Amino acid sequence: MSSSSIEALKALRLVLQHQGLAAYIIPSNDPHQSEYAPAHWKLLEWISGFTGSAGTVVITATEAQVWTDGRYFLQAEKELQDSPFQLKKQQVANAPEHIEWLAENLPAGSVVGCDGQLFSIQQVRHIEKRFEAKGIELDAQLDLLGPLWPERPALPQALVFEQDMYFAGVSRADKLRDIRVEMKQQKSAYHLVCTLEDIAWVLNLRGNDVPFNPVFVAYLIIGKSEAWLFVDSTKIPQTLYEQLQQDGVRLMPYSTIEFFCSTLSDRQSILIDPGTCSLQLYYQLDHLRIKEGEHLIRNRKALKNHAEQYHLKTAMRKDGVALVRAFRWLEAALQQEDTYPSEYDFAQKIAACRTKQADYFSESFSAIVGYNANGAIIHYRPNPEDAALIQPQGMLLVDSGGQYLDGTTDITRTIALSEPSAQQRLHFTLVLKGMIALSRAIFPQGTVGIQLDALARQHLWQHQLNYNHGTGHGVGAFLSVHEPPQGFASNLSTSRGTTALLPGHLCSNEPGCYLPGEYGIRIENLILCAAQTPEESSDFLHFETLTLFPIDVKLIDQSLLDAAEIQWLNDYHQKVFRELSPLLEGAELQWLEEKCQAI
Amino acid sequence: MSSSSIEALKALRLVLQHQGLAAYIIPSNDPHQSEYAPAHWKLLEWISGFTGSAGTVVITATEAQVWTDGRYFLQAEKELQDSPFQLKKQQVANAPEHIEWLAENLPAGSVVGCDGQLFSIQQVRHIEKRFEAKGIELDAQLDLLGPLWPERPALPQALVFEQDMYFAGVSRADKLRDIRVEMKQQKSAYHLVCTLEDIAWVLNLRGNDVPFNPVFVAYLIIGKSEAWLFVDSTKIPQTLYEQLQQDGVRLMPYSTIEFFCSTLSDRQSILIDPGTCSLQLYYQLDHLRIKEGEHLIRNRKALKNHAEQYHLKTAMRKDGVALVRAFRWLEAALQQEDTYPSEYDFAQKIAACRTKQADYFSESFSAIVGYNANGAIIHYRPNPEDAALIQPQGMLLVDSGGQYLDGTTDITRTIALSEPSAQQRLHFTLVLKGMIALSRAIFPQGTVGIQLDALARQHLWQHQLNYNHGTGHGVGAFLSVHEPPQGFASNLSTSRGTTALLPGHLCSNEPGCYLPGEYGIRIENLILCAAQTPEESSDFLHFETLTLFPIDVKLIDQSLLDAAEIQWLNDYHQKVFRELSPLLEGAELQWLEEKCQAI
Repeated sequence: MSSSSIEALKALRLVLQHQGLAAYIIPSNDPHQSEYAPAHWKLLEWISGFTGSAGTVVITATEAQVWTDGRYFLQAEKELQDSPFQLKKQQVANAPEHIEWLAENLPAGSVVGCDGQLFSIQQVRHIEKRFEAKGIELDAQLDLLGPLWPERPALPQALVFEQDMYFAGVSRADKLRDIRVEMKQQKSAYHLVCTLEDIAWVLNLRGNDVPFNPVFVAYLIIGKSEAWLFVDSTKIPQTLYEQLQQDGVRLMPYSTIEFFCSTLSDRQSILIDPGTCSLQLYYQLDHLRIKEGEHLIRNRKALKNHAEQYHLKTAMRKDGVALVRAFRWLEAALQQEDTYPSEYDFAQKIAACRTKQADYFSESFSAIVGYNANGAIIHYRPNPEDAALIQPQGMLLVDSGGQYLDGTTDITRTIALSEPSAQQRLHFTLVLKGMIALSRAIFPQGTVGIQLDALARQHLWQHQLNYNHGTGHGVGAFLSVHEPPQGFASNLSTSRGTTALLPGHLCSNEPGCYLPGEYGIRIENLILCAAQTPEESSDFLHFETLTLFPIDVKLIDQSLLDAAEIQWLNDYHQKVFRELSPLLEGAELQWLEEKCQAI
Repeated sequence: MSSSSIEALKALRLVLQHQGLAAYIIPSNDPHQSEYAPAHWKLLEWISGFTGSAGTVVITATEAQVWTDGRYFLQAEKELQDSPFQLKKQQVANAPEHIEWLAENLPAGSVVGCDGQLFSIQQVRHIEKRFEAKGIELDAQLDLLGPLWPERPALPQALVFEQDMYFAGVSRADKLRDIRVEMKQQKSAYHLVCTLEDIAWVLNLRGNDVPFNPVFVAYLIIGKSEAWLFVDSTKIPQTLYEQLQQDGVRLMPYSTIEFFCSTLSDRQSILIDPGTCSLQLYYQLDHLRIKEGEHLIRNRKALKNHAEQYHLKTAMRKDGVALVRAFRWLEAALQQEDTYPSEYDFAQKIAACRTKQADYFSESFSAIVGYNANGAIIHYRPNPEDAALIQPQGMLLVDSGGQYLDGTTDITRTIALSEPSAQQRLHFTLVLKGMIALSRAIFPQGTVGIQLDALARQHLWQHQLNYNHGTGHGVGAFLSVHEPPQGFASNLSTSRGTTALLPGHLCSNEPGCYLPGEYGIRIENLILCAAQTPEESSDFLHFETLTLFPIDVKLIDQSLLDAAEIQWLNDYHQKVFRELSPLLEGAELQWLEEKCQAI
């Protein structure tokens, strides 16, 4: 904790006392409910010192709590040592367990404060429902922390850039036109868009305001013939500005969104998403007819068009080549004791190999490189201080991805660094069988993620094994590597479980098996949903596997694979070799050929 | 249509005109939302002549419509010929498509009438929501048809009888005590029970008021120390009356339920199920604190206790023996051309064989015996007039079940009557693979029906085949053969899809494959959910297959089965032989032995 945040905590408690508030809640969200918040909105990190990406701070007269889930327990314990903050362990990630705690521990009649800018309407409704039953009131219009943060970082100012039509496939004007057709059907004069990925996609723009996701901080309102983009003008190059003008997109300063909303004519209809629209913005809309509706942009964005599909395949080839080089480097480094790299070194090396590929932009997330027991920690991220040294014994789990102008990648491979045990081969083969079952699935239109999720787990279940994460998430096209709504999950309350798969949906396929303290296994490819036959009328769908990198056959117990599974694996390796071999030569080519041998 | 119903239709239209109603809706439901309505409530059948079990009549000044789904199109067309009623084909069974029609065809300001006794609160809410958007009003307090039906059948008067503790396993007093513990936790003074199965189960009583389901027409209110059973006293034998008194169950005439509700003290809390409580009854509760809640009885009833499980296994042995005799009879009858039986004859024969078993009560549903193309009609029921003759060519699908005091059975077998084609064997084997996959499934606690449903379909999907029904339903213990909530369905909007399987849940497992105009295949066993290990702490569950009758191996393409599937089949046949052989001798025993040979 900085001295300013210690002062702030004291000051905040005085304000609570003065205003008669029993508690104040600080989330890790930004006003756009983004996956990665810019430093400007890292209020939670600043006040508590906890740097995990998901958590909530609750402050009362006597308590200062950081609520987070199992992914961050070790990190939080370390970061909160010697601070006035206490770690509260959540059972379930992103669950509002702190709200339960407040409801149970505050007396009826209490008032709890929070900043409505950082909460979606849906979140506030949930909190109010829970509090109401206990006679607790929520005052959601209190930004108490901002004024106490003297050295608060400014909003990010990275330049916004055009995504070339070559990559986007559909022009900004056409995308806006399509959205307006649906707005008209829904009788909406305006559509307010708060999600940064949706703004980037519909306008064919990208940015660099946060790590990993090429988005920029903005709001967008689409009207019947014009659209208003709320973004600071210094971030927009002149040629882009002119292009946007030409497409009917007017630029407004980011900070004017609330004022602009308040000036819209009375009783006009505006379509919003209560899951991402902040409460504070919602208050500015109360003279309008608010329609809470379908995710017009999100659901379109999820269906990759032909250009996006084409370029994604290019990105996959580049990614495969980069990984051939990275894994060969690792093999060489493991030859001699004095060159053993750490998990962190290897993560750096992978990024470096990707960087050399054309049109590379950034990592798509912070790579997970987990050696032996670290592989069993699902959200493990090696850091330079205490990453383990990788030695030629045991197993290594490597989950990484890149952002290319062509598309977004996300791949996990688990490799044996020495002769695997029978148990390791059993577990790896069960994971592989599930991964293949989902890859090979054919299924009728209307099938939702929870149905297919079970196909990836069935073989592990037979051995009373399971994995405590979804089987797959949607993936963006040079956008977020975690893109809703589709995917595969065993949970009825997630969109990944309940969304019907459609042709054009891009998903990860990543079952796993984790033995705490020993090792972790995960195999992940990206798969693209497509109609079963070229005819549009086909009632059945299937997946095309796009990721191109060999799977370690040393870890397979062949006696557990059936003929169809062996066929799939050999076909896959043949395809990997066919696609990557033209881009490799010499020792690298030979290395790939060996790894792609049929079993 | 009877002459009285033609008169009634005219009279009804006069009443509509007189009262300014644009339309009147008549459902096939009774006030308890039962699967089978007593004749007293068959208003729809009387007014329209349509005898299908699911439908809705809509009458306007100019239209008289019968809405029903694909199961009943042929039947309805025949029955509505030469009547003023027009068949309206529903796309989806039980969907409120007539409400859509009314919303689209009536002008704003219209009033639609119905009898609130025959609609659940949930149904009315749905209708009102749809109508509200169109400015249409629902007047749900109009029993217009009852007064027009001179020869209306009385309510059924069959005697109610005690279910022996030997079969029930838990006494009435203990069941009531358990329910009261939960009522107390939910702070409810009363629990209103409208579902006939729930009343029968919690009171260990059975009846004979409708075909197939051994229930009796009644309401039940459970209070803190007493319970009130609303059933006509002539149906209760004196000894049972005394027993009920002793257990704190007071008898009240069936017709006094509404008055009784209106006399309960103000502001007391009453727990109801909006899915089965009629609107009319709901109106009598408005001085109380109504709590719409959990299905206290339904969810307990679904978990079969040890006694119920034990007796069910006895019922399965009796059922298996009865089917051995019925199928042997069929084989003999097919030997000579002049003895070819009809589908109806065989259904009768099966029932006759079951009747000879000890403690047999009735069929558990009207048997489906579908020869060749008739097997592809999922809800086909042969009738004496036009049932097909079964000949020794092609295939036969037989789906039947019995009610025994020991339990309820439901089994489907599909047999080859001549050498099957390669396609028939392929389809049969794909269905069998799915049936085995679900039978063999091991899965973690918390797994819901929609996840396991996919396991039964995956092999058919690979061939772009599917079946247009759920994979399984819950089954009662000497109660309804279709018992909510659990089961296997690919639909997120059914309880069968979204209910977590628990140890003690009894379900059918019945994938199928139907080629319209050619043949139908279905294989059905009942399976009981159990913990994977005897320890209570086990996180994994599995199923025990209870149904005992051989599967026709002539229809199997062995090359499509893997080792585990062959093992399952051989183990199953070994178990069938082990369980049934002590009850058979001579030629019957030999017949079973042949059918249970290992492959």
